[in-house]
Amino acid sequence: MRATVYHGPQDVRVENVPDPKIEQPGDVVIRITHACICGSDLWFYRGVSKPQPGTRTGHELMGIVEQVGAAVHKIKKGDRVIAPFVISDGTCEFCRAGLFTSCLHGQSWGGDGNDAGQGEAARVPMADGTLIVVPAEVGDDQTMLKSLLPLTDVMGTGHHCALSAGVRAGSTVAVVGDGAVGLCGVLAARRLGAERIILLSSRDDRAAIGRQFGATDVVTGKGEEAINKLLAMTDGGAAAVMECVGSQETFDTAVAIARPGGTVGYVGVPAEKPSINIGRLFGENITLRGGVAPVRAYIPELMADILAGKIDPAPVLTMTVDINGVPAGYAAMDQRKAVKVMIRP
Amino acid sequence: MRATVYHGPQDVRVENVPDPKIEQPGDVVIRITHACICGSDLWFYRGVSKPQPGTRTGHELMGIVEQVGAAVHKIKKGDRVIAPFVISDGTCEFCRAGLFTSCLHGQSWGGDGNDAGQGEAARVPMADGTLIVVPAEVGDDQTMLKSLLPLTDVMGTGHHCALSAGVRAGSTVAVVGDGAVGLCGVLAARRLGAERIILLSSRDDRAAIGRQFGATDVVTGKGEEAINKLLAMTDGGAAAVMECVGSQETFDTAVAIARPGGTVGYVGVPAEKPSINIGRLFGENITLRGGVAPVRAYIPELMADILAGKIDPAPVLTMTVDINGVPAGYAAMDQRKAVKVMIRP
Repeated sequence: MRATVYHGPQDVRVENVPDPKIEQPGDVVIRITHACICGSDLWFYRGVSKPQPGTRTGHELMGIVEQVGAAVHKIKKGDRVIAPFVISDGTCEFCRAGLFTSCLHGQSWGGDGNDAGQGEAARVPMADGTLIVVPAEVGDDQTMLKSLLPLTDVMGTGHHCALSAGVRAGSTVAVVGDGAVGLCGVLAARRLGAERIILLSSRDDRAAIGRQFGATDVVTGKGEEAINKLLAMTDGGAAAVMECVGSQETFDTAVAIARPGGTVGYVGVPAEKPSINIGRLFGENITLRGGVAPVRAYIPELMADILAGKIDPAPVLTMTVDINGVPAGYAAMDQRKAVKVMIRP
Repeated sequence: MRATVYHGPQDVRVENVPDPKIEQPGDVVIRITHACICGSDLWFYRGVSKPQPGTRTGHELMGIVEQVGAAVHKIKKGDRVIAPFVISDGTCEFCRAGLFTSCLHGQSWGGDGNDAGQGEAARVPMADGTLIVVPAEVGDDQTMLKSLLPLTDVMGTGHHCALSAGVRAGSTVAVVGDGAVGLCGVLAARRLGAERIILLSSRDDRAAIGRQFGATDVVTGKGEEAINKLLAMTDGGAAAVMECVGSQETFDTAVAIARPGGTVGYVGVPAEKPSINIGRLFGENITLRGGVAPVRAYIPELMADILAGKIDPAPVLTMTVDINGVPAGYAAMDQRKAVKVMIRP
């Protein structure tokens, strides 16, 4: 099969790799129908993180089950499934608590000898604990499938950020980051009943999606300029701030615009190891809560709302490529020509 | 009157300073009957923080009201009062929410032209918003007054740490720091119903107070050694960790021993600007919550429990000095010969 392989900064290639097959009785093999390029993939694409050359890429995938291991009980051949970005056993202490990302036997796509998402097929270890089945009535409805695809990561991650930030009915929320996660965070905050959602965005195309998703205000500019605008608009900061990037600049902004006693929810991969302004957190009792999103825990409730037409994260997928177009998709996201790229292998 | 003045690292002196008098209609003047030296005073004593030479020191004080400004309504001449370590108006948004430390008109002892705690008397600005009256029936009961004195800071700070860490009935808690705050944190965690309270302490005298306060286990050693012991004892970390120092080493330890999905509560002044291991917080969804404790908010409920004999933080006050003994008290705390020093001016 064809799959995407990392070779170095700015260098991902689509190559022939071995077809997946069942290796453990808990495995299934899926034909990948939809996948994504993630904003966090840009960390290695830009050389900030340095995986081993030869690592397979992609961690957001949906597909159809083609082979089923002997010990798999919940997943059947022919099921259409959503694979979240972490592989989990579904049975350990942390999985039972919904914290699938801290699974005691967790594995990663492209690591641990696994296939990854940006390819034509994948072996899925611990399939019962990892996959979520899409209701059969969705069938081959490509519009709906595109809407469900962000459940593999960004929609659940935005929701985790909103929950972490303590967003509730009536909240005033500031969202730092206008990538797919930030935009989905706006959608999640609106879904949770936030009254005022201020999106920091300086790009008209993204701000437009943000407004469509429920942003009531858009603040342009960066750094001090944006901070001062937001502090003025909120008379001293937002009680709930959502950090959706993970860079030094965005962390600094998020901490600066949090209201005393408020919370910074964060979900952006802190690949640059940003330093945290602990002095301000301490002085103003601002909570820092979040982390890698256990999106599997959120898929059932978010999928129900997508199927019911209550929310639709599809607009973050602004570009579609086939398997051979994956490198062009990376380049487009790197150059911010695309918010997020859908792959139809 | 006599009061303590900072001149430089290792150099605090008791000097003659002007007697306080009413300056604003919201002021009262108190004769200080009891005060403390705080672990956080060691930050300037050791040269980590650098106040202006000439700054008056001390922020934990109790006394008797001697003069009352015209606009003071809740405090009367002759009242025995507790002054928390922040001066607050009691009426702003944050004070109404109990976050007195973020008061929009907040002032500090020894700053803002104010007297400070380690002296014979003090003008108290915004007295109605700052002071708490001790019930008259306590009278001159010195045993009880010593038990109430930690409400000015360390008992409320330990309680804030426990609340911030999410301690509740049945919790497993790890307490990092065996100073007065850490020990009061043990007492607070027990009061909130924690089932297992593991205190990190390598000093027998402090560990003994910790056990008296409710620690079920004491872990000796520092750094990796202590971390590994605690991870083994808890099979992977404590859901609630209380960071009660503020140094790089203690922050590193606290983050390392938190269980995935758990919370690090912190109240130690981060004077050294410790860097936070954001990678672990992110990867394991560990919340960082806390800050400077709004102790005034906690004084009523904690005082009630002290008066009822349910808790008694007095054992943290292991040394008593008069006003001229304050420099010796600093030296004793610096050399860890005293846990915390009570001043009877």
